[in-house]
Amino acid sequence: MSPREDFVAIFDSGVGGLTVFKEVMQKLPHENLLYFGDMARVPYGGRTPKTILRYAMECISFLMKRRLKCLIVACHTVSAHALEELKEKFDLPIIGVVEPMVQELETKKEIDRLLILGTRATIASNIYPRLILEKNPELKIFSLATPLFVPLVEEGMADHPATELIIKEYLRPLEKEKMGHVLLGCTHYPLMKEALAKVLGKEVKFLDAAPLVATKTYQLLASLNLLSKKKQPSYSFLVTDHREKFCSLASRFLGKSIALEDVEEVSLDS
Amino acid sequence: MSPREDFVAIFDSGVGGLTVFKEVMQKLPHENLLYFGDMARVPYGGRTPKTILRYAMECISFLMKRRLKCLIVACHTVSAHALEELKEKFDLPIIGVVEPMVQELETKKEIDRLLILGTRATIASNIYPRLILEKNPELKIFSLATPLFVPLVEEGMADHPATELIIKEYLRPLEKEKMGHVLLGCTHYPLMKEALAKVLGKEVKFLDAAPLVATKTYQLLASLNLLSKKKQPSYSFLVTDHREKFCSLASRFLGKSIALEDVEEVSLDS
Repeated sequence: MSPREDFVAIFDSGVGGLTVFKEVMQKLPHENLLYFGDMARVPYGGRTPKTILRYAMECISFLMKRRLKCLIVACHTVSAHALEELKEKFDLPIIGVVEPMVQELETKKEIDRLLILGTRATIASNIYPRLILEKNPELKIFSLATPLFVPLVEEGMADHPATELIIKEYLRPLEKEKMGHVLLGCTHYPLMKEALAKVLGKEVKFLDAAPLVATKTYQLLASLNLLSKKKQPSYSFLVTDHREKFCSLASRFLGKSIALEDVEEVSLDS
Repeated sequence: MSPREDFVAIFDSGVGGLTVFKEVMQKLPHENLLYFGDMARVPYGGRTPKTILRYAMECISFLMKRRLKCLIVACHTVSAHALEELKEKFDLPIIGVVEPMVQELETKKEIDRLLILGTRATIASNIYPRLILEKNPELKIFSLATPLFVPLVEEGMADHPATELIIKEYLRPLEKEKMGHVLLGCTHYPLMKEALAKVLGKEVKFLDAAPLVATKTYQLLASLNLLSKKKQPSYSFLVTDHREKFCSLASRFLGKSIALEDVEEVSLDS
């Protein structure tokens, strides 16, 4: 057996990547999944590219000690700032969240006005407009950093009236613009869909990377003939801090609870 | 000259400690001040005690390479969870934000109903109710973790109508209780005073550790005969990430801007 046949690993700065985990679990029901959340240093979205890269390198170096088939970087901030370096450094297939989204947009010719939402670091990277406009130069793109969305989701307040006011505040510079599609450029943001639809209108359509990443992972493993047929796959969770908080937030992202004993706290120094 | 005669150091997880810096600057106008913000790992308020202690140890070990008269831990989360260990480990006078506040409350016999606000970690430590009730057992105390206050302040939305709704949401379990005094148990919270007064009533009184810590520092240096008489003290800022973000937030906390060249990015590994 190859030393990398065992797990599909999913890396995120915290709990947000669980929206990706959920889709991967459904699309690849026979794979062992290993989730890694850097709860000791979350959130990454307000940090500099240099620090984002360093943190991702440290986490993935740790993960590489496990037996991995492939790695999903389930974080837009890391995918925006560090994916190329990670692919160069680590000798395994790595899938980010940006590329599948950009490829999806190439096929969606009906989109004419796109709002991209993300962390401050993701929006500052300008990666989405740059890659999307290469292929769809006619598209009208608006980008907006919305740093309060993550803490609002984590406080369980995504559907609170205060959140609606905050969305309106963020959108104020664009209030005269009609948006057709919204790119959810952070793995927390699928939990903001209802609140966003209240402000942007029910006809707005959302683009979520999670199912696209799951499909891409399926295709990758199929092409490498690495798909598992195991009946009862294992799901494991590694965190660098705060197992309890991770568990209590997880149910919001997964729609089901995680047992505390399935979450292991690890030290990156070891 | 003793190797510790030069700076009064002020340590915080991020920018919040600048509310303390501001008071120290006013009360000790002749001291060189050295501020340290762990911008690479902020916020500490949602982390476990073990991680909070480790981060504080690493930052202060770094600071100890400079010439320090004393150290102010300008962070309630660290003061609540790590102060005793820090005092044991490091051979210099250390002043936290909790003790001066508890001492102040001993003298304020008119207080009968006290609301304590803080990060999740500070409130979970229960340090304020425990220490306050030892001396004022008759006091009626209410404690509330308000984790959204920090990101709201940092987004410049402390006085936004959404913040008022969020305060009301946090206070819902206590809405029938009349509060006389509010203990601002996080160095960001002085910037929430106006919003809190809107919800709690204009007659509510705020207890802010910053001026108390400045007074205590003055007394300490005076008692050690270490007060400086320098005409033009120096103000330096060390951060572990994101000098630009630190500078742009600083003006909100200090009421005046900091020049980017006065902020040095440091690596804790070195």
